[in-house]
Amino acid sequence: MQRLPIDPARMLDDLDQIRRIGAVGLGVARRAFDDSDIAARRWLAERMEAAGLRAVADPEGNLWGLPPGPGRALLIGSHSDTQPLGGWLDGIYGVACGLEIARAARAVGGPPVAVVSFQDEEGRFGGLTGSAVWAGAMARDAADALTDADGITWASARRRAAEIAPLAEVPADLFRAYLEPHIEQGPVLDTSGDVLGVVEAIVGVRQATVTFTGEANHAGTTPMQLRRDAMRGVIAFGTALDAALAPIADARTVWTNGRITVEPNAPSIVPGLARVSVQMRDADAGRLGAMAEAMRATAGRTAAALGLGLEVAEGLSLDPVQMDGRLVAALAEGAEETCPGRWRRMPSGALHDASHVARVLPSGMLFVPSIRGISHNPAENTRREHLASGLTALAWAASSEALPG
Amino acid sequence: MQRLPIDPARMLDDLDQIRRIGAVGLGVARRAFDDSDIAARRWLAERMEAAGLRAVADPEGNLWGLPPGPGRALLIGSHSDTQPLGGWLDGIYGVACGLEIARAARAVGGPPVAVVSFQDEEGRFGGLTGSAVWAGAMARDAADALTDADGITWASARRRAAEIAPLAEVPADLFRAYLEPHIEQGPVLDTSGDVLGVVEAIVGVRQATVTFTGEANHAGTTPMQLRRDAMRGVIAFGTALDAALAPIADARTVWTNGRITVEPNAPSIVPGLARVSVQMRDADAGRLGAMAEAMRATAGRTAAALGLGLEVAEGLSLDPVQMDGRLVAALAEGAEETCPGRWRRMPSGALHDASHVARVLPSGMLFVPSIRGISHNPAENTRREHLASGLTALAWAASSEALPG
Repeated sequence: MQRLPIDPARMLDDLDQIRRIGAVGLGVARRAFDDSDIAARRWLAERMEAAGLRAVADPEGNLWGLPPGPGRALLIGSHSDTQPLGGWLDGIYGVACGLEIARAARAVGGPPVAVVSFQDEEGRFGGLTGSAVWAGAMARDAADALTDADGITWASARRRAAEIAPLAEVPADLFRAYLEPHIEQGPVLDTSGDVLGVVEAIVGVRQATVTFTGEANHAGTTPMQLRRDAMRGVIAFGTALDAALAPIADARTVWTNGRITVEPNAPSIVPGLARVSVQMRDADAGRLGAMAEAMRATAGRTAAALGLGLEVAEGLSLDPVQMDGRLVAALAEGAEETCPGRWRRMPSGALHDASHVARVLPSGMLFVPSIRGISHNPAENTRREHLASGLTALAWAASSEALPG
Repeated sequence: MQRLPIDPARMLDDLDQIRRIGAVGLGVARRAFDDSDIAARRWLAERMEAAGLRAVADPEGNLWGLPPGPGRALLIGSHSDTQPLGGWLDGIYGVACGLEIARAARAVGGPPVAVVSFQDEEGRFGGLTGSAVWAGAMARDAADALTDADGITWASARRRAAEIAPLAEVPADLFRAYLEPHIEQGPVLDTSGDVLGVVEAIVGVRQATVTFTGEANHAGTTPMQLRRDAMRGVIAFGTALDAALAPIADARTVWTNGRITVEPNAPSIVPGLARVSVQMRDADAGRLGAMAEAMRATAGRTAAALGLGLEVAEGLSLDPVQMDGRLVAALAEGAEETCPGRWRRMPSGALHDASHVARVLPSGMLFVPSIRGISHNPAENTRREHLASGLTALAWAASSEALPG
């Protein structure tokens, strides 16, 4: 099959230009549907039109660049909204790759390639909102009730979709597969020295809030043996949790106690309540279930041993999402061609739009390294040659025989 | 020696009356120098005068009831200010006991007994402020710079001292000893079934803030082996601290991790900073020093093992204060007389005005039980017969041959 005449310098120039829209120092601030986000999407729509694609916005504000003619297109993209103060690559790298490959394909009359920038991936309203509604993971009505921190609803915010491009519904059967290139947002590639990561699965998440209740008491007058100290519950639980999860985990399993609340939170008062978050992530649904089970059992044993009350409130629960085997194979081919021996198969520890798109299209993801693993931060960066390598591998995959027809 | 004709019912009636000044539900709100505090002190001054004492306020707003005539008086009292919403007995019980014993002594021409209500024991400004300045533990100028949560200075607040009673400096050499009756504010007596506690020492305090610093990272994309998780520092430190202090502690030693701060404190972010308070209390200065040493060593080992940064900031440090042996003996006599076999010697785990007064006068303390150990709370309570037993034991001690001359 014909190689697509991609131009990495042109893609990097696109990235440099769009970085200026919403720039704050080295970082970028484009919250879903704010003025900068709309301006960036309009700029992308112009670029799509210039590449010979038809730019349309769907009712969720997802921006699409659709190739003319018959035949189902390969869809490539990600998102262009950012964290409140994010980096210059998170999301937009995937859109810029899609744009360049679609442009190259148009130039040589190659296979139809479409581009997408999903909306609100970064969660001003919900997180992955645009792709969730588009892929049917969330009802439009349910999304409409989401609000941002100021109480603005998704329903009212998404009226701005019409400012982006002509409105249209975009059915999934226009496409044959979805490829999402993305910065890794973690330290694995940067640490190993690999240039590319072919994603095999997006990890699932199990989250819970574990609350220990004891009795708040004077820290001077209450003997140790008469205390019911909720903070000691958290400490004992944290230690026991590591011991309980270690034998279940593999090298890529992660768990985190990221948030803790203690009441009354004073040096002279024995804590009466302590609440800790537990978030567990793994690419294997069975392992995640076993971890959640071990976590609950550990919390129960800890509370019983210390005479504390216990509540375990289950929170976010997302199953792992397997990437399509044909796309993994195509991306692996492209990666090996681009940087032989310097790429790896890996899970994605973060969620991405592909988590939802995989419901309706065969989906695959390709990672480029994040320097020091930094993301969601103005210091986020990737070496320009690695950004180019990702594009090259993707272009190879886009013309691979391994792709779904 | 003559028994003093105390009237427990009269003392309980005083307590019932003053409870109404600043009453909020079952609780009481009399912050140092607020309108309720001033009203309560004026009411006490009237009661002192009615008992044949001369009421004077010193420049710190401590209220004194001084008996006429020559001879150094036995000083009995505590404080009448409260927590923002405190109970009906904390502090005022000791003042009411002093008032009743002074009244009884006056009635029979007994030994001279003076009464005191120290100011700001509960720390609207500093904590133990009135007794600290009076006993020379804190310079008047230093106290004047203290502020409350609204920025009001002690210097400006204490101008209200003149509203309480005629102003005068009250030198310590007017007195031969200090007795402070107080509710226990802990569960020891209530749990053991004892009626009285003779305090042998007020425990010392060593406090520190231990800060672990790591690196905040995405909780999905950062493998466990690449994390520097500050929260795991707190968890490991808490577990190791218990193991390190247990062999040093005796049954009355206490330590507490009461306050914790985690940054950024989000379920999806590996904590980059976690800060925990360590407060240790013991009646033995040598043991306290050994505990502080063990605590620092444990924090150091924990940080080194986890690759975390560490800062240990020493905070509050107060040496234990031994009660005067003659007063302990006199109170033990009175307790055995009042409730044979149903009293105990014990440390005070809380600080009291006696902590400072002991610098300038032989000092002793007597505890009555707090039901369920509750204090600093509107639910604070003591059985009325126990309040009466404390008064009876005190009156016995006040006329004991064992007292300092």
